[in-house]
Amino acid sequence: MGLNARKKRAAGAARAAGVDALLVTHLPDVRWLCGFTGSSAALVLLCAAGHRARPSRSPIRAVLFTDGRYIAQANAEAVGTEVVIATRPPLTEACEWIAAARVRRCGFDRTQTTVAALATMRKSVPGKLRRSLFVAVDPLVARLRQVKDAEEIASLRAAAALGCRLFDRILTFIQPGMTEMAVAAELEHAARLAGAEGMSFETIIASGQRSALPHGHATLAKLPRRGFVTLDFGVLLDGYCSDMTRTIHIGRASASERNAYDAVLEAQEAGIAAIRADVVTGDVDEAARSVLRRAGLADWFTHSTGHSLGLEIHEEPRLAAKRTEKLKAGMIVTIEPGIYMPGKFGVRIEDTVLVTRSGCEILTPSPKAWIEL
Amino acid sequence: MGLNARKKRAAGAARAAGVDALLVTHLPDVRWLCGFTGSSAALVLLCAAGHRARPSRSPIRAVLFTDGRYIAQANAEAVGTEVVIATRPPLTEACEWIAAARVRRCGFDRTQTTVAALATMRKSVPGKLRRSLFVAVDPLVARLRQVKDAEEIASLRAAAALGCRLFDRILTFIQPGMTEMAVAAELEHAARLAGAEGMSFETIIASGQRSALPHGHATLAKLPRRGFVTLDFGVLLDGYCSDMTRTIHIGRASASERNAYDAVLEAQEAGIAAIRADVVTGDVDEAARSVLRRAGLADWFTHSTGHSLGLEIHEEPRLAAKRTEKLKAGMIVTIEPGIYMPGKFGVRIEDTVLVTRSGCEILTPSPKAWIEL
Repeated sequence: MGLNARKKRAAGAARAAGVDALLVTHLPDVRWLCGFTGSSAALVLLCAAGHRARPSRSPIRAVLFTDGRYIAQANAEAVGTEVVIATRPPLTEACEWIAAARVRRCGFDRTQTTVAALATMRKSVPGKLRRSLFVAVDPLVARLRQVKDAEEIASLRAAAALGCRLFDRILTFIQPGMTEMAVAAELEHAARLAGAEGMSFETIIASGQRSALPHGHATLAKLPRRGFVTLDFGVLLDGYCSDMTRTIHIGRASASERNAYDAVLEAQEAGIAAIRADVVTGDVDEAARSVLRRAGLADWFTHSTGHSLGLEIHEEPRLAAKRTEKLKAGMIVTIEPGIYMPGKFGVRIEDTVLVTRSGCEILTPSPKAWIEL
Repeated sequence: MGLNARKKRAAGAARAAGVDALLVTHLPDVRWLCGFTGSSAALVLLCAAGHRARPSRSPIRAVLFTDGRYIAQANAEAVGTEVVIATRPPLTEACEWIAAARVRRCGFDRTQTTVAALATMRKSVPGKLRRSLFVAVDPLVARLRQVKDAEEIASLRAAAALGCRLFDRILTFIQPGMTEMAVAAELEHAARLAGAEGMSFETIIASGQRSALPHGHATLAKLPRRGFVTLDFGVLLDGYCSDMTRTIHIGRASASERNAYDAVLEAQEAGIAAIRADVVTGDVDEAARSVLRRAGLADWFTHSTGHSLGLEIHEEPRLAAKRTEKLKAGMIVTIEPGIYMPGKFGVRIEDTVLVTRSGCEILTPSPKAWIEL
């Protein structure tokens, strides 16, 4: 789907929400709609009913307001979008433009617009428009972004594949006594050399007792001679995130460690088996959680089963208890149950999968069988 | 200044703003106040007038709401703060707690609270409190964070010093023909091995014509045999950001390249010379900008002169044209004029400095004299 098709879909969603323009300030939404990757942007889409009368291939009018750091970059990236280099705050100039364009009702994303930003928006337009012009709407663009198009699936597939190559490689690097930070440094260096622009979140390398911390970022702690090491990491490749977790064991494991691993793996595979289009997200969570419940370990599974990802590492829908959204083909989600026993150890196993009509495709097919280094 | 002193100052600012509690959701503010570094948090400070009657060393009551991923971490980090592990969204549970604690007016940061979050907050409390309980206030905690305390200055000094060591090191690595990405990878790997938890922003390595992009992230473009390379990077060390830029030249420079460099350096030094407590930020911008104006280059200086930094890479106050805030001793700011000639080249030079009563201390004393590799 090209950028113009995305703009058309957003304009359609905006019209359905009863507005004739949409003000977009959340940077991943801006990027998805017009291609601009800079850090300062306010994008206006004109989607008035009048535009529907045009031939269907005619473009949606879109105007991007950014600042002087991005003159060349905005014009190069935002093809098909008018670019305005603002000399005052881009949001202010965008709102003035909206008022001058005789927009009557302009939607803004209630989940991305602060109370202060809304006040700025209202102050930027003539007094008579202050109450009526700006209308809070649901996250329309983020909702469209939930189902990935072919280009996005290709990007996410490439990012996930890079993650898997990095995991294979790091297995040959890990040794007892090296620091968690050294492992993270090696992984991230290899990611960069492979073309990643960075990591999609702060790398988690949690070893020994630290594996009981679900978000145990890499520290100067040394990998033990015996114990778990949880590696949870993701790359950013062409703007798209990868996310995977593997837990390996250094040295001989105890029976309780091995049992915990087997239970988490079974839960993770049960979660994956539950995924297909039209399944309720809460039911996927329950499929994984019930395995741990039967094993008497559910009290140690203290987070939700997964989340969607794309241009952002955490997107909607989440796969959590009691959530009622339905999965759709083309969504990309993680399945990542884990158990965490403070003072002892923790285990988490995570894949990223593409939801399909009949099930899912695992985008992170690195081995999940027990690994003892 | 310990965490309790920070809480006391925030409580005092909240009382001065006419509220008897403060709801803090911006993660850097949460970290600054209570030490918690997780990604999910709502912190409540009780700051009712009644608390003033207590002995001055008695602690401010603070309650941190987070989720099940952070049980061990929250208790370990947020010493002196009560921790509640929420089973529903932490924000919802925090608001229910505030209502039950008989708070009458609870402040929230208007610049960090979305329209949707405010609706959630209001829905979480009994109907009769919905209109009156939550009061939009200015960014009180961010304002306290503008002037760094001794521990913060030490952290920022250490981060800046690491940045300088990385720059020295990367100079011995850079060769024509290697990719910008390879330079970034080397720099970031060394940062990690030196203990950084990551970079404070996506590394900018902009070479040849790409140096004309103020935010030219490292790409697979190869360093030229002749031309500028702009390196703008920062580490994250113990939560604090560094930020510095140097522009070097590979091979023999043209007279116009050399002139541009000299003008930017003169502008940057003029900006630094203008800094001291009580000076207006806009005047620092003008000090740098006027040098480029006299050189006939001001049209190519398309951004502001600098920004503050700390736990976040971009903090207030900014050093931009017409800004009227005054600098204070203990602020940490960047001075980073640059010129960008599309299709030709660009130059930027940036230091991070600590504002003092009589001037400033440069925290990034790497050489700025012309470097030709």
